[in-house]
Amino acid sequence: MDFQEVIMRLNRFWAGKGCLIWQPYNVQVGAGTMNPATVLRVLGPEPWHVGYVELTIRPQDGRYGENPNRWQQFYQYQVILKPDPGNPLEIYLESLEALGINPREHDIRLVEDNWEAPALGAWGLGWEVWMDGQEITQYTYFQQAGGFDLDPVSVEITYGLERIVMVLQGVRDFVHMGWGAGITYGDVLLRSEVEHCNYNFETASVERLMQLYDLFEAEAKNALGAVLIIPAHDYVLKCSHTFNVLDARGAIGVTERARYFARMRDLSREVATGYLAQRKKMGFPLLKKAANAQARPLAPVDPSRFPRKPASLLLEIGTEELPAADLDFAMQQLRDKTPQMLTDARLSFEDVRVLGTPRRLTVCVRRLSPAQADEERLTKGPPAEAAFAKQGQPTKAAFGFAKAQGVSVEDLQTREYEGKNYVVAMKTERGRSAAEVLADILPRLIALLKFTKSMRWNRSGVAFSRPIRWIVALLGDQVIPFEFAGVQSGRITRGLRPRGSPDIKLSDADAYFEAMKAQSIVVDAEARQDSIASQSAKLAASVSGRIPDDPPLLREVTHLVEWPTALLGEFDEQYLELPQEVLVAVMKKHQRYFPVMKDGQLLPYFVAVANGPFENLDVIRRGNEEVLRARYSDAAFFYKADTGRKLEDFLPRLDTLTFQDRLGSVLDKVTRLEKLVSSLAQLAGATDAERQVAVRAAHLCKADLATQMVVELTSLQGVMGSQYALLSGEEPEVAQAIYEHYLPRSAGDDLPQTVPGLLVGLADRIDSLVGLFAVGLSPTGSADPYGLRRAALGLVQILSERGISLSLSEAFRAAAALLPLEVSEDELGTVHDFVVQRLRGWLLDLGYRYDLVDATLAERADNPYQSLEMVRSLSDWVERPEFAVLLTTYSRPSRIVREYPTEFPLHPEMLTESAERELYRAMLGAQKQRASINDVDGLMAVLRPLTQPIDTFFDQVFVMVEEQAVRENRLALLQRIAALPRGIVDLTKVLGY
Amino acid sequence: MDFQEVIMRLNRFWAGKGCLIWQPYNVQVGAGTMNPATVLRVLGPEPWHVGYVELTIRPQDGRYGENPNRWQQFYQYQVILKPDPGNPLEIYLESLEALGINPREHDIRLVEDNWEAPALGAWGLGWEVWMDGQEITQYTYFQQAGGFDLDPVSVEITYGLERIVMVLQGVRDFVHMGWGAGITYGDVLLRSEVEHCNYNFETASVERLMQLYDLFEAEAKNALGAVLIIPAHDYVLKCSHTFNVLDARGAIGVTERARYFARMRDLSREVATGYLAQRKKMGFPLLKKAANAQARPLAPVDPSRFPRKPASLLLEIGTEELPAADLDFAMQQLRDKTPQMLTDARLSFEDVRVLGTPRRLTVCVRRLSPAQADEERLTKGPPAEAAFAKQGQPTKAAFGFAKAQGVSVEDLQTREYEGKNYVVAMKTERGRSAAEVLADILPRLIALLKFTKSMRWNRSGVAFSRPIRWIVALLGDQVIPFEFAGVQSGRITRGLRPRGSPDIKLSDADAYFEAMKAQSIVVDAEARQDSIASQSAKLAASVSGRIPDDPPLLREVTHLVEWPTALLGEFDEQYLELPQEVLVAVMKKHQRYFPVMKDGQLLPYFVAVANGPFENLDVIRRGNEEVLRARYSDAAFFYKADTGRKLEDFLPRLDTLTFQDRLGSVLDKVTRLEKLVSSLAQLAGATDAERQVAVRAAHLCKADLATQMVVELTSLQGVMGSQYALLSGEEPEVAQAIYEHYLPRSAGDDLPQTVPGLLVGLADRIDSLVGLFAVGLSPTGSADPYGLRRAALGLVQILSERGISLSLSEAFRAAAALLPLEVSEDELGTVHDFVVQRLRGWLLDLGYRYDLVDATLAERADNPYQSLEMVRSLSDWVERPEFAVLLTTYSRPSRIVREYPTEFPLHPEMLTESAERELYRAMLGAQKQRASINDVDGLMAVLRPLTQPIDTFFDQVFVMVEEQAVRENRLALLQRIAALPRGIVDLTKVLGY
Repeated sequence: MDFQEVIMRLNRFWAGKGCLIWQPYNVQVGAGTMNPATVLRVLGPEPWHVGYVELTIRPQDGRYGENPNRWQQFYQYQVILKPDPGNPLEIYLESLEALGINPREHDIRLVEDNWEAPALGAWGLGWEVWMDGQEITQYTYFQQAGGFDLDPVSVEITYGLERIVMVLQGVRDFVHMGWGAGITYGDVLLRSEVEHCNYNFETASVERLMQLYDLFEAEAKNALGAVLIIPAHDYVLKCSHTFNVLDARGAIGVTERARYFARMRDLSREVATGYLAQRKKMGFPLLKKAANAQARPLAPVDPSRFPRKPASLLLEIGTEELPAADLDFAMQQLRDKTPQMLTDARLSFEDVRVLGTPRRLTVCVRRLSPAQADEERLTKGPPAEAAFAKQGQPTKAAFGFAKAQGVSVEDLQTREYEGKNYVVAMKTERGRSAAEVLADILPRLIALLKFTKSMRWNRSGVAFSRPIRWIVALLGDQVIPFEFAGVQSGRITRGLRPRGSPDIKLSDADAYFEAMKAQSIVVDAEARQDSIASQSAKLAASVSGRIPDDPPLLREVTHLVEWPTALLGEFDEQYLELPQEVLVAVMKKHQRYFPVMKDGQLLPYFVAVANGPFENLDVIRRGNEEVLRARYSDAAFFYKADTGRKLEDFLPRLDTLTFQDRLGSVLDKVTRLEKLVSSLAQLAGATDAERQVAVRAAHLCKADLATQMVVELTSLQGVMGSQYALLSGEEPEVAQAIYEHYLPRSAGDDLPQTVPGLLVGLADRIDSLVGLFAVGLSPTGSADPYGLRRAALGLVQILSERGISLSLSEAFRAAAALLPLEVSEDELGTVHDFVVQRLRGWLLDLGYRYDLVDATLAERADNPYQSLEMVRSLSDWVERPEFAVLLTTYSRPSRIVREYPTEFPLHPEMLTESAERELYRAMLGAQKQRASINDVDGLMAVLRPLTQPIDTFFDQVFVMVEEQAVRENRLALLQRIAALPRGIVDLTKVLGY
Repeated sequence: MDFQEVIMRLNRFWAGKGCLIWQPYNVQVGAGTMNPATVLRVLGPEPWHVGYVELTIRPQDGRYGENPNRWQQFYQYQVILKPDPGNPLEIYLESLEALGINPREHDIRLVEDNWEAPALGAWGLGWEVWMDGQEITQYTYFQQAGGFDLDPVSVEITYGLERIVMVLQGVRDFVHMGWGAGITYGDVLLRSEVEHCNYNFETASVERLMQLYDLFEAEAKNALGAVLIIPAHDYVLKCSHTFNVLDARGAIGVTERARYFARMRDLSREVATGYLAQRKKMGFPLLKKAANAQARPLAPVDPSRFPRKPASLLLEIGTEELPAADLDFAMQQLRDKTPQMLTDARLSFEDVRVLGTPRRLTVCVRRLSPAQADEERLTKGPPAEAAFAKQGQPTKAAFGFAKAQGVSVEDLQTREYEGKNYVVAMKTERGRSAAEVLADILPRLIALLKFTKSMRWNRSGVAFSRPIRWIVALLGDQVIPFEFAGVQSGRITRGLRPRGSPDIKLSDADAYFEAMKAQSIVVDAEARQDSIASQSAKLAASVSGRIPDDPPLLREVTHLVEWPTALLGEFDEQYLELPQEVLVAVMKKHQRYFPVMKDGQLLPYFVAVANGPFENLDVIRRGNEEVLRARYSDAAFFYKADTGRKLEDFLPRLDTLTFQDRLGSVLDKVTRLEKLVSSLAQLAGATDAERQVAVRAAHLCKADLATQMVVELTSLQGVMGSQYALLSGEEPEVAQAIYEHYLPRSAGDDLPQTVPGLLVGLADRIDSLVGLFAVGLSPTGSADPYGLRRAALGLVQILSERGISLSLSEAFRAAAALLPLEVSEDELGTVHDFVVQRLRGWLLDLGYRYDLVDATLAERADNPYQSLEMVRSLSDWVERPEFAVLLTTYSRPSRIVREYPTEFPLHPEMLTESAERELYRAMLGAQKQRASINDVDGLMAVLRPLTQPIDTFFDQVFVMVEEQAVRENRLALLQRIAALPRGIVDLTKVLGY
């Protein structure tokens, strides 16, 4: 089937579904979304159903036509359905059938992929649709555009036409696809592709493009000033395209990028605002054309039809494919909340099982009681003396209360409350039927489910992880009727997608598992996971390999299928020449494949997991292999390009990468790091050899940011730098430090193992923190665009866990001295506070008591390593029985002097009483001992000898005597004792003090 | 049928015809042509068949959505067929049927419309396709692109989708067309249309757009420098669009326009050159894919099958629709050349008739002889003495000659040549059969036809007015076989387009007229013309009106149809409020309708002429009415906009219209004209009142160039100025002068009737001539971009025909003094010569003898009026018998002195002979008389008394005596006589002198 035939069929298909068939836009765009037929029409209440082709330009993706399926231009087929017709995914799958794609022969899967276009102020939730591992469509529920919440939500379906046609034609490269009339895609487009790549990467004039951007922006504003929405939008698109070319040309630094995005976002928002205002003024004309659908009324619960004895409850929430993490999260919540909710509702049950697949969250309750337990309810009435006359006759008050409570006066009883008698009414409330109760609480149960990101999709306005499309709620053989998110509960579940998701009518709750099994759906996540693990292991073993443990990956794959079928794919051995990290990163990040290893070496195989039972896996296997081949071809392209030069040769390019406007380029930063690393080496007491390695590593540590591999796979920063360093002939220690300086990349990640590695890592973080705070870019609220929280945490972790005793303030001062701007003491103080806050949080996360953490930080915050040591030691101490004694020893003198901020002079000669004199001597001994210690153990040893003298002192001496001189002299003595822990921990902050 | 349905059907249709179905371009373009799929792919030898939609942006055409069918954006469906498949028009008509357009119900016509895109260095010949008067398609045979001749030629078919859909849906406005899914064209596009109009006409920043243009151009060059063809092309398109917006914004003057075009043309040519080089380097890959069609061999002539007695010859050259002018021109050539060619070929005949319709040129020869007359041929051989021995025996030389000539020695004869005998061979050559001769000469006859513009269309490389699609060549009942332009002659002609152009097999030549009649084809142009005239007159009479005489229009309409069916259409009376000139201009220029008048007033009717017999004319009438309505709506839009201001208020806009770089703006010119008009009034002896009117008219004469009506309908310049002047409260005389100053607009046009009108007209032309010559922009070769030849001719005509006696040199000097630059005497001389050349040509065109014209111009060239007077008078004189006598009277003395350039002193006392003395006295009398006359009559009267004295003098006196003093004195006397005509005419230039 030719490329053009596919387009013609899609047009025909979507026209048949009531869509307007639109045309590609006449301005270069980075996505069909940017066509006003999407980005503007999704705004506001008007219905809009449209389908069109869009040529999509992504300069950064150009490969000079050398990659089989990645070009800087490609064709999208874009569909917008607004509002959601209720079954958009099914319609979409039907469209694939119209293209001749048989869902029983291909592994079609929905893999979470949320979408965000900051430049358009737009985002949505949805999936990539994979066919045999190949992404063929992006499917999104638009939540926001132009900064506006969308109501109704639009369904956006974006087909990648080339990918689909390649599969249909069985060709391995864009170039060889037949377009039509005997002409190939390559015939018509390859030269242009090569030229555009050359233009975008090598030829475009940065200076002129920047001027163009500014002119486009100015004209966008000019048009907006005259309230000309579409002309303004066109210029926003031109800004966007120009930005993309500048970006491909390597002319945009990190901070500049943020600024450009902000500029585009502002414009987009103005355009969206203008558009909405215009439509409103026009009276939303398309709204008038649309008919309102009538809602089906909900049937009431008829308890008489429900079972009279304990029965099974089945609740199945049928959704479109849930993201893997959401599935686990939701199941956990159901496990927590269901029993609680039933219990609260006075319904008894034997047990609750929670199961789930990407398309269903299932709660099974066994032997649920047919009705609530009866309940006695007592209501307090007037005082007994007011309710009954002396003779015991009920008064008016008693009658009134009884009437209000619906009981007879005779049934009133009395109870004593706080020594006084009151009239009470006792009522036995009959438990309602389970059906009635469940009709109330099941929707509330669903509503309680929370997700990290949730979305709206229909008029109900309900937010959920993904759209709910059906709900099964059966108690025994009866439906518990309720409505949630516009969906009415029933007895119909749906089968497996590869089988067309057939409707399956359940006779009763217990029939569920059989029905699922018949449909080849494994509802139990653990069973699926085990099955995947064992299938994969078997396949790996068949080529003498094994699958390395990777629980997160295994879990994710488990949640991508309802029926796992693992398959072994192969890739060309030539790719094994690429670094293993690259190959594995590509497999995992892009494809969710399991790598197959042998003796720590990657084998040229992978394991993919398809959804459903298939008669013939060859098509699917070949598809997956093709996808990986294309990915690896891409990686090889980068690797070849990158290794054509020495790592050091990438350094000059860092000068074109802005780190931050006022802080200069990344190259400027590198220059600072080299110097800072030297200072830190000294502060941290590194050897000279370590210092030299660290300086060289600092010199090279960011060079890989300019390599294509890292531009493409950011997660490989440091990894590639290290690899490329070795290939460039650098010392292995230098390469190692380059790798390590990014560690830890996330919570739980490794820490640098070598001193040079950690020195560079520290320097990098300290430079960013001090620099960005100094230019006012500290994190605010939830926004932390520069990842400074993570940087601070990393700093703290490295220092403390790797035992580097370093003064933060000294390090910060050293960093500040290297910056191209003045940093005030105030600013340094702010950074310091910020890092200490992270330190505090981290110590708390480690499980230390907050009082002990605060006690430590009060004295040792400047040195995270020491803080950790102190809090650890202190924590040990508080567990010992002796601690309470020692704390009292300290608290008695120190409490009394707390209110005297100034230190009184101590005149030993005025200490006349023996207890005073004894304490004075003990204090002198303690002071002497204190001078030689610096930890909690030492402090405790210092305090221990004071216990007895202090006790005696307070027993025998009254401090607060009238005579001022004596009083102040005694206070002076106590102040000396109170000062002893200073510099170690602040014991006044310890609980019990 | 929805808009989207039409697109889907066209895609399907053209895909079925082997076309690649392409996509709209992602850069704003002014035509589908600019998509690389056309403008680049038409270059070079590779085959290319493509169809696609293109959104076309023409800022200038915006009407804020208020015109029913003219918007600044519209959709084209573009098809390229390369090479010409042989029947592209038929395929196109089939595509209309695929859209449900029944050719038997609609009047579908092809109206000449050639296409040129200077910015692309491209042009082609073709038609507008009209359906019921509405242009629905542009059909072009591309001849050149990027400055390159195209080989093969491409067929370009550009559908105007909106126009077609309007007809299909029977709606009267773009806005109400259904696009699809219940949504109208207006729903999706009206707001955007209004906004774009606002942006293009009012809001766009001229300064920024000019900067954008420069940046785009610089990037185009940058890309070209790196040989990146498509990126460069994209920037050329961006230049073009930016230019178009600037133009709509009114920011481009005439000369600037030319400069912008030159810049774009240069870029386009470079892009084309680069593209061709690239394809060549690639080895023209698509060429390899194409199979070569095998040519059918031509059958030889078999004379035995042809009639043996005189028979009719029919030659029908079947073409695609010929332009009206070409049809007349070709018929005239056939009338001239056919008899001559037959005669030269020794074929006798009774008569030759030439007929024609837009689709056929027909030659009918009656009673053509079956064979050539026999011919005797004589060849001269060796001298007789060498050929025959003394005894008369033939020598070796005779044998050799006889053998070479193919005769026997006995048949040799002798002939005398220049007094010497030679051997000759006499051969009787039998005439060849007419069939054989015709097979030779008929293709040569066709090849002889010339056209103003001709085109190539297929591999034969033959150029013709339009493609030849069939040739009928019958002698009696036999085909004369030949091939011309890749077409083989035969006996099959084709019927009427509305009937699907059925093939019609002719049994013999004489069957032709019956066959044509049966097909409702009137082959005789005069018969068609008469039919149109009488049908139209009848229709006009039915509403009590009449059709004003307009022979060129009548002729054109005659040549647009094969079977004329006139119909009466109506338009809304409200439009009669517009100036009649506007209404008529629109009818004629755009629609070729006949206006219907009554007592000099336009009636709200028109007569259109459809092609073919139709059962029901209502659809066609309504279609034509709709078209005119849209046109009038447009005119009303302009009129309303223009009359919202006073005419004078348009003047400032003239300052933004560059007249010429160094000569300033049109406003500068106007300022000069006001002054020049004053000077000319004085020189021409106008009254003061006339001068005042002329000055005011000069002030306003160009103001209408800034009005929308004139921008749209340039032919109305002056007409609108005059109308708007009246509406602005100017004096009627001023309005009249504004109108008249453009007269004569073309050969045969009226001249200004009022003195102010002609004064402004003279000033305008003189300013242009002197100014443009001074800056070096005189016409060269055939190029006359500023129309200076016409200006000079107009100048000459006005002066002479309107009897204005004015010295050109004085007028030129006055004009030069007003220019913003120095004009040298040399330059003034060059302009003067140029104008005199036009004067000479014009006098010759009037029929005056060139010798008399030259005689006159030798003396009176500076004053065209006097020149005309003189040559007219002289022409009368030469007809009189007396003139010869008088010429002799003059020639005898004047010839003798011609070789003496210096004038000798005349000493009367030395004239001694009576004849001398008598002549001297006569001469004195003549001199005296000469002083009081200034015309030819006077001159003749001066010469007449000299006849007798001169005769006597030459009889009795010998001038050239030896004695120098006497001789020179006599010559001196004759010189005085020879000088008499000086200042009137130069008689020495008259034939017979």
